Amino acid sequence: MATYTPPLEEYGFLLKEVFDFDQTMAALPAHDGTDAELALSVLEEAGKFCTGILEPLNRSGDEEGCRLENGEVVTPRGTKEAYCAFVEAGWGALSGELEFGGQGLPRVVQILLDEMLSSTHLSFGLFTGLTRGAAEALASHASDELRRTYLPRLISSEWSGVMALTEASAGTDLGLLTSRAEPVGDGSFRITGTKIFISSGDHDFGGNVIHLVLARLPDAPKGVKGISLFLVPKFLVNPDGTLGERNAMAVGSLEHKMGIHAQPTCVMNYDGAIGWLVGEEGRGLNAMFTMMNAERLFVGIQGLGISEIANQKAIAYAHDRKQGRSLDGTRSPVPIIEHPDVRKLLLTGRSLTDASRGLAVWTAMQMDIAARHPDAQVRADAGDLVALLTPVIKAAFTDFGFETAVASQQVLGGHGYIREWGMEQFVRDVRIAQIYEGTNGVQAMDLVTRKVTAKGGTVAARFFAAIRADLSTPAGNSHSRLIREATEAALARLERVTAEVLAGQGNPATAGAAATDYLRLFALTACGWMWARMVGAADPEVSETQRRRVGLANYFAARVLPQTIGLENMLLAGPDTLMAVDLS
Amino acid sequence: MATYTPPLEEYGFLLKEVFDFDQTMAALPAHDGTDAELALSVLEEAGKFCTGILEPLNRSGDEEGCRLENGEVVTPRGTKEAYCAFVEAGWGALSGELEFGGQGLPRVVQILLDEMLSSTHLSFGLFTGLTRGAAEALASHASDELRRTYLPRLISSEWSGVMALTEASAGTDLGLLTSRAEPVGDGSFRITGTKIFISSGDHDFGGNVIHLVLARLPDAPKGVKGISLFLVPKFLVNPDGTLGERNAMAVGSLEHKMGIHAQPTCVMNYDGAIGWLVGEEGRGLNAMFTMMNAERLFVGIQGLGISEIANQKAIAYAHDRKQGRSLDGTRSPVPIIEHPDVRKLLLTGRSLTDASRGLAVWTAMQMDIAARHPDAQVRADAGDLVALLTPVIKAAFTDFGFETAVASQQVLGGHGYIREWGMEQFVRDVRIAQIYEGTNGVQAMDLVTRKVTAKGGTVAARFFAAIRADLSTPAGNSHSRLIREATEAALARLERVTAEVLAGQGNPATAGAAATDYLRLFALTACGWMWARMVGAADPEVSETQRRRVGLANYFAARVLPQTIGLENMLLAGPDTLMAVDLS
Repeated sequence: MATYTPPLEEYGFLLKEVFDFDQTMAALPAHDGTDAELALSVLEEAGKFCTGILEPLNRSGDEEGCRLENGEVVTPRGTKEAYCAFVEAGWGALSGELEFGGQGLPRVVQILLDEMLSSTHLSFGLFTGLTRGAAEALASHASDELRRTYLPRLISSEWSGVMALTEASAGTDLGLLTSRAEPVGDGSFRITGTKIFISSGDHDFGGNVIHLVLARLPDAPKGVKGISLFLVPKFLVNPDGTLGERNAMAVGSLEHKMGIHAQPTCVMNYDGAIGWLVGEEGRGLNAMFTMMNAERLFVGIQGLGISEIANQKAIAYAHDRKQGRSLDGTRSPVPIIEHPDVRKLLLTGRSLTDASRGLAVWTAMQMDIAARHPDAQVRADAGDLVALLTPVIKAAFTDFGFETAVASQQVLGGHGYIREWGMEQFVRDVRIAQIYEGTNGVQAMDLVTRKVTAKGGTVAARFFAAIRADLSTPAGNSHSRLIREATEAALARLERVTAEVLAGQGNPATAGAAATDYLRLFALTACGWMWARMVGAADPEVSETQRRRVGLANYFAARVLPQTIGLENMLLAGPDTLMAVDLS
Repeated sequence: MATYTPPLEEYGFLLKEVFDFDQTMAALPAHDGTDAELALSVLEEAGKFCTGILEPLNRSGDEEGCRLENGEVVTPRGTKEAYCAFVEAGWGALSGELEFGGQGLPRVVQILLDEMLSSTHLSFGLFTGLTRGAAEALASHASDELRRTYLPRLISSEWSGVMALTEASAGTDLGLLTSRAEPVGDGSFRITGTKIFISSGDHDFGGNVIHLVLARLPDAPKGVKGISLFLVPKFLVNPDGTLGERNAMAVGSLEHKMGIHAQPTCVMNYDGAIGWLVGEEGRGLNAMFTMMNAERLFVGIQGLGISEIANQKAIAYAHDRKQGRSLDGTRSPVPIIEHPDVRKLLLTGRSLTDASRGLAVWTAMQMDIAARHPDAQVRADAGDLVALLTPVIKAAFTDFGFETAVASQQVLGGHGYIREWGMEQFVRDVRIAQIYEGTNGVQAMDLVTRKVTAKGGTVAARFFAAIRADLSTPAGNSHSRLIREATEAALARLERVTAEVLAGQGNPATAGAAATDYLRLFALTACGWMWARMVGAADPEVSETQRRRVGLANYFAARVLPQTIGLENMLLAGPDTLMAVDLS
């Protein structure tokens, strides 16, 4: 089986030809030394780490899984060494704050590293993604003392981060959680409760494990307003920064899961564990959302990563595997990539993957602008767009990732169903990305009830206007007609339905009935936009690769975007038929 | 977790109120004593076997899996006892030929038993489905002597059947297979070769294992015309019918698979194993197709079975699980079945499942007519419709089954991803049904290149005319307007695209580019037809259940059938964009 090839050519194309990364970064004082060449050379090295160290561990990690020995997590053979090598090489600190020892590279570079990590070892990448999210939450909300103590070693990834939200009866509805925090009197608290589904809850890599735990103070009000956030370390930290005694917390058991077997997904028991308040009392969910938004984007990128590798491997297989007769009837057997129905499986995945990556890079650039631009209004505007796109990226990219993994598995036939080729693992692993960090239904509700309606709908309107402006800008070549027209039509559908969704909020079922279909319509339209931009930038006379991009855009316009017609129709049908059925 | 409830009420509704089973059977001399009451009482007993014996073994069978000990297959604890109880109770012989000891019940009853088997234990059901298919192939093609020796004990299921087709380099393209058969001189042959992915290849249930093996005679021509079919028993049979010495064949290894872990999927080595020719030399594929068509319908029913149980369990969970606020804002937490986006996951699965079952029963009745009607023309006409529907049922029902299992898993959130609730097993198990017995892409190619064009397109035209006739027959009540109109529109799309597909066969890529989208359009339209019939038969004043059927039909019309609009658009776009992309 062909090994994974980091999509560096695609990265270069996006940074240099589609988005003008250099100019965008030059406007951000923190990044004005970072150009595409630097970014690409970093990513090339990161790609070597992913293919050399991580990919070889992916299957054995799945087969071996994690286990609990005397209450301690044992990760699969090689995981610890890979993690230490990752930290040693500085990959964990790539986009971390310079102030706390990070390398301060832009978010754009970070998400492309995240993509390669997710392609080659999803379970491993999740350790690093959670650590970065925890660092971001602490950077935004923790006291100076907590930041000084914990941030440098979280940013280096020497210590790892964990988000501890879910309880058996409190998943989507965090207001129901019952974990308690009692003030000790010295500024610390004792945390008691049981959390489930805790990714990276513990490990055997050495270092500390920093849990961000949601719990209730005594006399806190019911619901989400009574929730506060606490930093709870596995090991208490001595004044000199060394690890002190073990905190009163333990892994109760490991979950047995469909996939991500190399990830220790823990039931965590906190038995009066010492912790410290992060942010204000009763504002725990607000502080946690800094981490959750970072993780939602990261999880979307997990979907992208699996899309990429599954599609790559299916294409390689379809070139090698010979079955059946050529279309003109003269040759047999032929590589199955000649068969139209096999091509459709490959092209749908490829066209979704490349467009998604474009949208990811665009969004990450908005994140860099939101974080670093000198003009406050520019920062705020970019931040609004990131907020709008966050649920779309999380849900649509993981849906596309799952669909692409399943379609890629189908290309291999029976060989896709057995372990040997690795395709079935991609399907099992990526499935979690549609569920955790807020299910994709929760993301869709966030989009229709908060993000699209934010600021009177002006943020969404600005996003749609940006798409329309690009579609009506003359392209550098004449090959984008089909994708421009198809995207224009999809955008018109999206705008019509948006007006309907906004107008329909009088019926309380309207938003929920629309949510997932609306999010998919939104995402497909945004992908069409990306193809229009990518083809506008690609001169097909220049290379095979650019000719291929034109072909993919035409395919996407003709054979994928028509989904939006059906979606509009379903959405305009409204909630009535959906609420009328008695399902008892 | 709620246990599975056999859908007996639905079976009764279909047999008595939608399809007039009694009158149809009365016209078939072989079945004129079989009425709906008898069928339902048989199915009620079968349901008890499935819930009492099989369902409790499903999860442990998955976790334990099969293993090979000293070359012998060991199935999970309890499987052997369940199999013996199944045979003892006579369930294996339900629809077998009376002449060879079967009970001779109609196919309609058989497929509903198959559904319940598939719901409660997919791996187990596959043993019985393959045995029946092998019996059917032998009944149609084997010599009298082979039939006398093997059929009674295959029909009782005391012995089991196996189809051995695939080789490492010959999957979809069986013309590439290389297994050899050398005549011994006494009428028998020595079979040599290695087959992979052999379901039920061996077991530890006792009895014989009868392999139907495709192989080439010496000097046979290349390609499919050189393939013959051989009966190769695990144990040679003595003249008195007792088991004699072991044949020269062995399990080389077991495949490690994504799911159906309780199924021993074998690599089989035939090392000069003794076998006998079934049917004519060089006509092995023809004989095998009797078995393959039976299995394709059976595999479609596997998809239906998983749809049913996954959706049932998700509905039960959604009633129990409380998260979030009611739509009117007054209650919290509420059962998640109140949330529109959860309802959509449940309703899509439920509306596809019930309509699919209707189509399965309709098709099985055509099979009974094709097998038993006294008028040859009636038999032939019914057989043509069965041939048309076979790829649709195999591919669409397994796609719907997978989609419904995934959507049902999503309803459970994180609980759907862990083993405990069983949902992730449904997803892993049903995934194989889209792949084996000819991938769903192969089914779609069969539909567009052979079935829809058969007899100048007259068979398909007759099917479409039957749908239109039902849509224009006045219904027994006024509740079917929405589903009739939506199905009428979908049918018009299907007919337009059919004309296009038939017309477009000049371009050799047209059929392949259309295949899978066309099959889905066909299947959704047929499901709409079924809902129109079911609602036409259901008076909502009579019961809650019938009110629910009207609601489901309206939901299907408004929120599922619009998919056909997008599909038509994609199909009319043709193959060009699909063939133009260079995927090297």
